[in-house]
Amino acid sequence: MESYHERLRLATGRLGALCAGIDPHPGLLAQWGLPNDAAGVERFALTVVEALADTVAVVKPQSALFEAQGSAGVAALERTIAAAREAGLLVIVDAKRGDIGSTMAAYAEAYLGGGPLSGDAVTLSPYLGFGSLAPALDAARRTGRGVYVLARTSNPEGACLQSAVTATGETVAQSIVDAATAANQEGVEGVAGLVVGATHATTGLDLGGFAGSILAPGVGAQGGTMAGVRALFGDSPALVLPSASREILSAGPDPALLRDAARRLLGA
Amino acid sequence: MESYHERLRLATGRLGALCAGIDPHPGLLAQWGLPNDAAGVERFALTVVEALADTVAVVKPQSALFEAQGSAGVAALERTIAAAREAGLLVIVDAKRGDIGSTMAAYAEAYLGGGPLSGDAVTLSPYLGFGSLAPALDAARRTGRGVYVLARTSNPEGACLQSAVTATGETVAQSIVDAATAANQEGVEGVAGLVVGATHATTGLDLGGFAGSILAPGVGAQGGTMAGVRALFGDSPALVLPSASREILSAGPDPALLRDAARRLLGA
Repeated sequence: MESYHERLRLATGRLGALCAGIDPHPGLLAQWGLPNDAAGVERFALTVVEALADTVAVVKPQSALFEAQGSAGVAALERTIAAAREAGLLVIVDAKRGDIGSTMAAYAEAYLGGGPLSGDAVTLSPYLGFGSLAPALDAARRTGRGVYVLARTSNPEGACLQSAVTATGETVAQSIVDAATAANQEGVEGVAGLVVGATHATTGLDLGGFAGSILAPGVGAQGGTMAGVRALFGDSPALVLPSASREILSAGPDPALLRDAARRLLGA
Repeated sequence: MESYHERLRLATGRLGALCAGIDPHPGLLAQWGLPNDAAGVERFALTVVEALADTVAVVKPQSALFEAQGSAGVAALERTIAAAREAGLLVIVDAKRGDIGSTMAAYAEAYLGGGPLSGDAVTLSPYLGFGSLAPALDAARRTGRGVYVLARTSNPEGACLQSAVTATGETVAQSIVDAATAANQEGVEGVAGLVVGATHATTGLDLGGFAGSILAPGVGAQGGTMAGVRALFGDSPALVLPSASREILSAGPDPALLRDAARRLLGA
């Protein structure tokens, strides 16, 4: 079985390293002439999938925006995941889940076990400790999927916590990087990815030993540039996957314009 | 409009301070003779609701175990929330969500805006900073709901991060407590609750200034006792809400036995 990391390497080698967010925000739905309901969200998401298949390697549906429509929105997320994988796109479900023990195992089952909410990878939040995410890492190794664990984010409110210093003298963010590096040495290379904000997030972060994938949101509308992202992570052996949402999505709903926006980023 | 905290105070004043977890784990489903699918999860959850209405003040469905069944499970969660509120129970949706900006606003809309996934309160995870949760606090203030933010959990993997020291010299967990205390002074008393593990979690935590609600999981099967929980938080002005799941649920599916298990905890 091919690992997520191998599939990601192949796909980004072919199409370039860019992840397109699927973020059906109410404002974008209005701009696209779609209703702010589950049907509108689904039409939005499937339009992105159809437009960007064979143009980008990865899409990242934002679970919150589907959940905002209740279970009908979650059903739309399932159909979006299925359509994207069918079209050959890799899918990172941006759900930022995190819990402990058998509850974490249930999240792992949902997002990494192979059911209808399982894409190719899922984002996770480590407030309960990187170790609490073990059931997800186990599931990802078993099913050829991956996880992206929040490490250092670019929002200003994140600094206080992520820069706090642990008992062993490193920052919280660095402890997550180190734990992910260690997890990648246990069986499946690259099973543990990281989320590191693209704008200013690597400040003080040592990514030199991390050879997994780094999901770097914040390209485009949020201020980062593709060249800036590559420069930020220049000394890391990681597979850096810049992610853009509004920069691409605000070009829609015309599929050709969505593709143009993605290609502009890929060529930048 | 009555705030969540006022409703919680009334309900726990009448029935006692106990939250019953609704955790349809695969093992419990099997023990109850129910299938491990969305229908089984819903039957389990509705049985708990029917059995415990008028016996406990609060129920806490665990979202992960519904999500494990995909969107059909999320639909079962919606019906569980509706049935519990209809039966007069307060509902804390244990979802541990957390994100930033307009994405956090979408989670707030889903769980606090009044739609089908909105209970009376929701649990949140603050890895992206307490400040990133502001859209949820705003929504909770607006709709008379509440949030419970993870502060100090009892799982051993949580200590490294939660005990890390911030730039202002306090632990991460304490910084969450202090931020929640401050949030409660902005308009709606008790809108910000905390999750603090019942077993050994208050080690070093100063809760003396916190007058919101503390959700304290870990009673019963996980090792804490009701008396132990009350002792742990004895010097805090908080409304302490011990939560038990397996201790109650393993007595099912007989409604009378579920009630007996809850009453044993309430009388302990």
